[in-house]
Amino acid sequence: MTLFDRLKSEAARDWADYTGHEFLRQLEAGTLPLAAFRSYLIQDYLFLIQFARANALAAYKGHTLDDLVAGQRGLTAIIEETELHVRLCAGWGLSRDDLNAAAEHPATIAYTRYVLDAGLRGDLLDIHVALSPCTIGYAEIGSRLKPVLEDNPDHPYAEWISEYASEPFQETAAQAAATIEELGERFLGDPAANPQRMASLTQTFSTATRMESAFWQMGLDLGAAVQEAESPAQA
Amino acid sequence: MTLFDRLKSEAARDWADYTGHEFLRQLEAGTLPLAAFRSYLIQDYLFLIQFARANALAAYKGHTLDDLVAGQRGLTAIIEETELHVRLCAGWGLSRDDLNAAAEHPATIAYTRYVLDAGLRGDLLDIHVALSPCTIGYAEIGSRLKPVLEDNPDHPYAEWISEYASEPFQETAAQAAATIEELGERFLGDPAANPQRMASLTQTFSTATRMESAFWQMGLDLGAAVQEAESPAQA
Amino acid sequence: MTLFDRLKSEAARDWADYTGHEFLRQLEAGTLPLAAFRSYLIQDYLFLIQFARANALAAYKGHTLDDLVAGQRGLTAIIEETELHVRLCAGWGLSRDDLNAAAEHPATIAYTRYVLDAGLRGDLLDIHVALSPCTIGYAEIGSRLKPVLEDNPDHPYAEWISEYASEPFQETAAQAAATIEELGERFLGDPAANPQRMASLTQTFSTATRMESAFWQMGLDLGAAVQEAESPAQA
Amino acid sequence: MTLFDRLKSEAARDWADYTGHEFLRQLEAGTLPLAAFRSYLIQDYLFLIQFARANALAAYKGHTLDDLVAGQRGLTAIIEETELHVRLCAGWGLSRDDLNAAAEHPATIAYTRYVLDAGLRGDLLDIHVALSPCTIGYAEIGSRLKPVLEDNPDHPYAEWISEYASEPFQETAAQAAATIEELGERFLGDPAANPQRMASLTQTFSTATRMESAFWQMGLDLGAAVQEAESPAQA
Repeated sequence: MTLFDRLKSEAARDWADYTGHEFLRQLEAGTLPLAAFRSYLIQDYLFLIQFARANALAAYKGHTLDDLVAGQRGLTAIIEETELHVRLCAGWGLSRDDLNAAAEHPATIAYTRYVLDAGLRGDLLDIHVALSPCTIGYAEIGSRLKPVLEDNPDHPYAEWISEYASEPFQETAAQAAATIEELGERFLGDPAANPQRMASLTQTFSTATRMESAFWQMGLDLGAAVQEAESPAQA
Repeated sequence: MTLFDRLKSEAARDWADYTGHEFLRQLEAGTLPLAAFRSYLIQDYLFLIQFARANALAAYKGHTLDDLVAGQRGLTAIIEETELHVRLCAGWGLSRDDLNAAAEHPATIAYTRYVLDAGLRGDLLDIHVALSPCTIGYAEIGSRLKPVLEDNPDHPYAEWISEYASEPFQETAAQAAATIEELGERFLGDPAANPQRMASLTQTFSTATRMESAFWQMGLDLGAAVQEAESPAQA
Repeated sequence: MTLFDRLKSEAARDWADYTGHEFLRQLEAGTLPLAAFRSYLIQDYLFLIQFARANALAAYKGHTLDDLVAGQRGLTAIIEETELHVRLCAGWGLSRDDLNAAAEHPATIAYTRYVLDAGLRGDLLDIHVALSPCTIGYAEIGSRLKPVLEDNPDHPYAEWISEYASEPFQETAAQAAATIEELGERFLGDPAANPQRMASLTQTFSTATRMESAFWQMGLDLGAAVQEAESPAQA
Repeated sequence: MTLFDRLKSEAARDWADYTGHEFLRQLEAGTLPLAAFRSYLIQDYLFLIQFARANALAAYKGHTLDDLVAGQRGLTAIIEETELHVRLCAGWGLSRDDLNAAAEHPATIAYTRYVLDAGLRGDLLDIHVALSPCTIGYAEIGSRLKPVLEDNPDHPYAEWISEYASEPFQETAAQAAATIEELGERFLGDPAANPQRMASLTQTFSTATRMESAFWQMGLDLGAAVQEAESPAQA
C-alpha cells in the first residue's frame, strides 16, 4: 500500500465528500450554473497563484538537486495551468486584469494559506502531502469524468474536464504520488513505527481535503448569490 | 496621524463591519445565544494557539534585542489570554482536552493562516500590521462595551467584556500601536513617498479585518446550527 | 539510549573536538588571553540574538500550546543569558551599544544562520536538534569545569564557568534533552525504522557541532590578531 | 542612479575587495593553482544548490504571477549553471556523486545561509538584494576578464570565464538589476524618505558581498592546504 493510498484510506470520508461533491455532480451532468463555474474559476485562478508559491516553497525545502528539479517542475506546471484559466475566462469576456483584481474569497484564503503554513511549519514531506489532495484529486476527478465527453462532445465544461483528464495532467499526478512515496522513505520511515508522525500527516491531508470541499461549496454559494442578484424581484 | 490610524481610515468600511458586527450587538445586549458564544469561544481558543505562533514569528523576524523582547512579551500575553478561555469554558463543563480536540473551523483557518503567511512573506512590519486588527480591535471593542457592565453587573458576558476592557489589555493594545508606529519609521518611511508599500500594508490590514468579521459570523452561524439541531422536531 | 545520546555518539569525534577545544583548555587553565575571551564574548552576544530568533522559530514551529510554552521559555532564557554578557563586558568598559555596533564574524554568521535554516527547512525536531549542541554542550562544559573554581575561586573566568555550571543552566539543558526525547517520539519514531531521517538529523547535529568548534577557533584567532596588532614592532 | 548602483556605491570598499580579490587576480593571470580552483568549484557546486533554494524562496515570496515567473526563471538558471560545474569537474575525474559527497565549508555555509535567512526574515526586495552580489558581481567579473581570452584562447580557466562573460549570463544579471529597480519602487519607495530601510538593505548587500570575498579566500586557503599536504616532506 503506497503512502498516498494510506492517507486516502485514513481520510476516506473526507475524500469521498471532496471527490463526489454536489458541485462536481452538477458539473458532470452539465447542469452546473455558469455563474457558479465562473465564480469558481476566478477563485481558482487566485488559488493557483498561491499554489505556485507553495510549489516554490517545496523547492526551497529541498535537500538535493533532484528535490529542486522536482520543485521547479511543479512550479512550472502550475504557472502553465493558470493559462487554462485565463483562456477559459477570456471566452466570457474576463481579462487577466479582471482576474487579478478579484478579491480572494475566505475559502480560497483558508485552503491556500493552510497549505503554505503546513509546509513551512513542517518538512518537505508535509508540504507535498498538503499539496496532494489538489493535484492527485483533480486527476482522479478528471479521469472519472472523461467518459462523459465521449457521449457528449459539446458538454459545456468539456475544456475543463479535458484538461484534468489529459495525459500530461495524469502524469503530473502520478509523479506527485511517486514523490510522496519517495519522501515517505526519507522522512517517515515505516509508518507503523512512527505512529504520531503518521497521524500528523493524516491530519494535514484530511484538513486540506476538507478545504477542497469547502472550495467547491464556495462555487455553488457564489453562483446562487449571483443568480439571486440577477433574478427579477418577485411581486 | 499615526500609521495605525491611517490604516484604519483606509479600511474604514471593513473596520466598521468588524467592530460593529451583529455578533457584538447581540453580545452587548446580552441576547447572544450561549450556543453562539460557546462555539465562538472554542474556536477562539484554537485561534489563539495559532496567534501565539504568529507572535513567535514576529520575534523570529526581529533584528534587535528589543524586537525580540517585544515578541516575547506578545507571545507571553497570548499564552496567558488562553487561560481566560480555559477558565470560561470550564464553567460550562468544557475541559482543556475538549478544547484541544475541537476541529478548526474554516474561518479560523482562514484568519490565522492568512496572518502567518502575510508575516512570513513580508517583513517585521507586515506581521505586526496583520496582527493589529485583533489586538487593537478587541481593545477598542472592550473599551466601548465597558459601560454596559456598570449598568448591568450580572451581564451574561461580563467576564469576556471585562477582560478586553481591562487596563492590562488596553495597555497591550496601546503598545501594539506604538510598535507599528516605530516599525513604520524603520520599514516604510514616509507613506506618501512609498505608495505601493502603503497600499500593500492596507490590503493586508483590510483582509485581516475582513477575516475578523467572518470569525464573528462563524460564531452566529455555529450557534444557529446548534440551536436548530437541539430544537424539537416540529410536527 | 536517549535520542540525544544517540546523536552525540554518532558525531562522537565532532563532539570531542568541540567540547575539548584548545580554547576551552586555555580557559580552564586560566591562560586564555583576555583578548581572545573578549573577542569571543562580543561575538557570543551577537550569536545569542540570532539564537533567540531560533528559539522563537521553535515556538512558531509548535503544534500544541505546550510546544509554545516550551518555545517561550527557551526564548526567555536566551534573552536573560544576554544579560550575563552585557554585565561581563561592562566590567571591561564595553557598553551595550559597543556590543550592538560590532560586526558579525563569518563564524558567527555560519553557525547561527545554519541553525535558523535547518529549523525552517525542517520540522520542530530539526530545530531542537540544531539548537542542542549549544545548550547541552555548554552545560556539559560548565559541569566539567566547575571543580576548577573550588581550587581557584579567583579564576579569571570564574563568572563565565559559574554561569554554565549553575543549577538553572543545567536544568535548562536537561529540559532541552527531554524535549528532544519527546519530539523524537512524535516526529522520528523508532530510529531503526526511519534510517534516512536519523541520518539527516545526525548530519544537522554534527554540522552544528562543527560550527561550535569553529566558533571557539574564531575566539583564538581574533585574540591572536589583537595581540599581534598591540605588540610593539620588533627591530 | 539605480538602486543597485546606489547599493554598490554605499558598499564600495567591500565591492572592490570582492571583485578585485587575489583569487581573481591569479585566475585572470592563469597562475591560480589548480588545487585552489578545484576546491573552489566543488564548494561552488554546493553553494549553487543552496542558491537555487534561495531563488525558490524568492518565488515563494512573490505577490503576483509575474513575481512567480521571475522566480521560476532564476531557479531554472541556477539549476542549469550547476551543469557547468558538473562538466568542468568531470574533466578532472570528479563525478556528480563526488560533488554531492563533499562537506560544505564554513564559508559556504556562512554565505548561503545568510542569504536564505535575510530573505526569509525580510521581504521580496531583501531576498533579491541578498542574491545580487553573486549574480551581478559574477557578470561584472566575467565581462572584465573576457578580453584575456582574446589574447590567450588556451587560458586554463577559459571555460569558466566564458560562462560568466557569455551573453545569457550577462542578460540574467541585467534582468536581476532591473528586478531590484522594480522592487525598489514597490517596497522601498524614495530612498531619501525611507532612510532606515535603505540602511538595512545596504547592510544586507555589504554583508553578502563580504561573504563573497571570504568565499574566494576559502578557495586560496583550501588550495594552499592541498599543495602543502601533497608536497614532499622536507628534511
